[in-house]
Amino acid sequence: MQLSAIKYMESFARNRKDVISLSQGVPFFQSDDAIRKSVVEAILSDKVDKYADPQGLLPLRNAIHTRLLGEHMQYDPDEIIVTAGAMEGLSACVLALTNPADEIIIPTPSYTAFFNLSDVAHLKISMVPLAEKAGWSLDLDLLKKAITKQTRAIVVCSPNNPTGSIYQKETLKEICSLAKSKNIFVILDETYRNMIYDSENLYTPAMEDKYKDIIIRVVSMSKDFALTGWRIGYIHADRSIITRILPVHDVLVNCAPVVSQYAGLAALQNERRIITEHQRILKDQREIMGLYLAKLREYLDFVMPMSAYFYFVKVYGLTDDVSFCMDLLEKNRVAVVPGSDFGQGGEGHIRLCFGRKKDDIIEGMERLTAYFRRNGSI
Amino acid sequence: MQLSAIKYMESFARNRKDVISLSQGVPFFQSDDAIRKSVVEAILSDKVDKYADPQGLLPLRNAIHTRLLGEHMQYDPDEIIVTAGAMEGLSACVLALTNPADEIIIPTPSYTAFFNLSDVAHLKISMVPLAEKAGWSLDLDLLKKAITKQTRAIVVCSPNNPTGSIYQKETLKEICSLAKSKNIFVILDETYRNMIYDSENLYTPAMEDKYKDIIIRVVSMSKDFALTGWRIGYIHADRSIITRILPVHDVLVNCAPVVSQYAGLAALQNERRIITEHQRILKDQREIMGLYLAKLREYLDFVMPMSAYFYFVKVYGLTDDVSFCMDLLEKNRVAVVPGSDFGQGGEGHIRLCFGRKKDDIIEGMERLTAYFRRNGSI
Repeated sequence: MQLSAIKYMESFARNRKDVISLSQGVPFFQSDDAIRKSVVEAILSDKVDKYADPQGLLPLRNAIHTRLLGEHMQYDPDEIIVTAGAMEGLSACVLALTNPADEIIIPTPSYTAFFNLSDVAHLKISMVPLAEKAGWSLDLDLLKKAITKQTRAIVVCSPNNPTGSIYQKETLKEICSLAKSKNIFVILDETYRNMIYDSENLYTPAMEDKYKDIIIRVVSMSKDFALTGWRIGYIHADRSIITRILPVHDVLVNCAPVVSQYAGLAALQNERRIITEHQRILKDQREIMGLYLAKLREYLDFVMPMSAYFYFVKVYGLTDDVSFCMDLLEKNRVAVVPGSDFGQGGEGHIRLCFGRKKDDIIEGMERLTAYFRRNGSI
Repeated sequence: MQLSAIKYMESFARNRKDVISLSQGVPFFQSDDAIRKSVVEAILSDKVDKYADPQGLLPLRNAIHTRLLGEHMQYDPDEIIVTAGAMEGLSACVLALTNPADEIIIPTPSYTAFFNLSDVAHLKISMVPLAEKAGWSLDLDLLKKAITKQTRAIVVCSPNNPTGSIYQKETLKEICSLAKSKNIFVILDETYRNMIYDSENLYTPAMEDKYKDIIIRVVSMSKDFALTGWRIGYIHADRSIITRILPVHDVLVNCAPVVSQYAGLAALQNERRIITEHQRILKDQREIMGLYLAKLREYLDFVMPMSAYFYFVKVYGLTDDVSFCMDLLEKNRVAVVPGSDFGQGGEGHIRLCFGRKKDDIIEGMERLTAYFRRNGSI
């Protein structure tokens, strides 16, 4: 097992001042002042030094409970676990609910960490390629065919990283109905739910009581609130499922960092303002990157993403996306992520993050443009 | 799988104001002012919001490297991973280096989380009971007999939780030589290394180059620096081993919380002063608890622990330690941990933490005394 290409590219960029990174999904924003103020206050008033309850601070779980109710999701505070980032939540969930040699279905392209996580849990990965031409939608027949007696879970990443597409409401319902009929868990990775640019009131099957016994919803606070370094997120599920995940979460980290739990609490208390501000800026940056890409239409194809902060770009004639990214890095010093890192259907693509600093986006896109203009088509 | 009795007792105590807890090992100290000052500065100067390199901030790894050199342990910064507490380090280590159905040897009594962790990794646990009458020492013949072709690792918790005993230098060498000859990893849990009361210059086999290819040393910063809530620790091992653990650590938490990495850095910069101060106070509290226990000699047996902050007390005639602890909790409202939670050889004991507030220790010991005086011998 190795670190993903995302980490590799980012690490390379971190150590080379002359490289512009559009690789790892790190929002350029700093944490909000209200969050900082609240955290500093908590530190100075002796609140963060001691272990919290493994499940998370009760005031935070209460705030999450209320927050979920606002989106019509009915989960009691004891059906929530505060986690050391969404990844720890996902890890605890997968390690708790699967056994070695079980199968996990991942519609792809999808977030790279699922693959390494499945390896850690000794699962057999079954990828179901999404239909790029149909807006990266899921073909339910393909999903049905992928299900076997060993299938334990389906991981649905929507809004999707890397494509920025969003699963249709009907598709999500059908996935859940199918999963329920086969007694399979649906793990909903909704990391980018707060980063949607052209619509509101996003549907999630976690709203529906009838799916509650098979759904685990994983929520990150890293991207929308620009808290990547703090490692804070949460998961929620039916009590019967949470009871199984909690001891694994306890083994992995004991409890989420308490100082970050206070950051999470302040983030929720200021959510609307922070999210609105970030969305406005990211929407602008999506536009800027899109304009650059539009001028490169002879070399590549793309759709404007509806959510998250990535363009997932198909480069015409590209077979070896890893070599392409290395060559781009070497010659023009821009770090992007090879699409094959995201699983089947990602090959021949590159992922570009528009959540980075505006200056970096502009300079990075200038370099990418120069690279294509010099090399011509692949 | 369930939460350990430690967590259960602590959680119960947390929700009941009238209960005194001597259960979970939480030092009563607050974090040092120098740590707080440094962390607040890092927050306000925009240093903690973004992901760190998965392996940890380089300045912190450099400081750890130097710190280790001071104790004659030769590990380069790239042989260190900063972790979200020692448990995450242990988890990443065990998940990376074992396969399901492998065997792990745990000399017991030993820290409870090893058992749940082994379950998460689907390992077969082989317990080797330590010899209580010989100061909880390890019988090497028993260890040899426990080794099979499936044995992948031995977990050595020294200074030991819950007994407070320390493995002899010769024993540690023999364990490592044996392990090396059988190609087995030795995972050294040295969480309590900075909490030794009657000696200095503790030996660790991590000092010896000849064992470097089999040793993973796990270091907590939670207890000695009173940073339990921050989730910060580290592991170090030979480069060849670290390369295998790093992607698993990355899957579990991405990186240790960056704000806590700054806390860790400040802790190391002020280590001598903080540790000395904590040691002095804990030594006093060990004395206070010991005086109470000495007056109960007709009911129980114990030795003064050399390290950590627990008394591991044998209660005469006690067979069901779990019921005993529940009865004590119910009748006299003191939470302590049943010894059977720590594995074979722990049965019939209770663990009491003297790292809690002095007032709580006194009140808790008064209640324990009253309980014994009323109930007589078991």
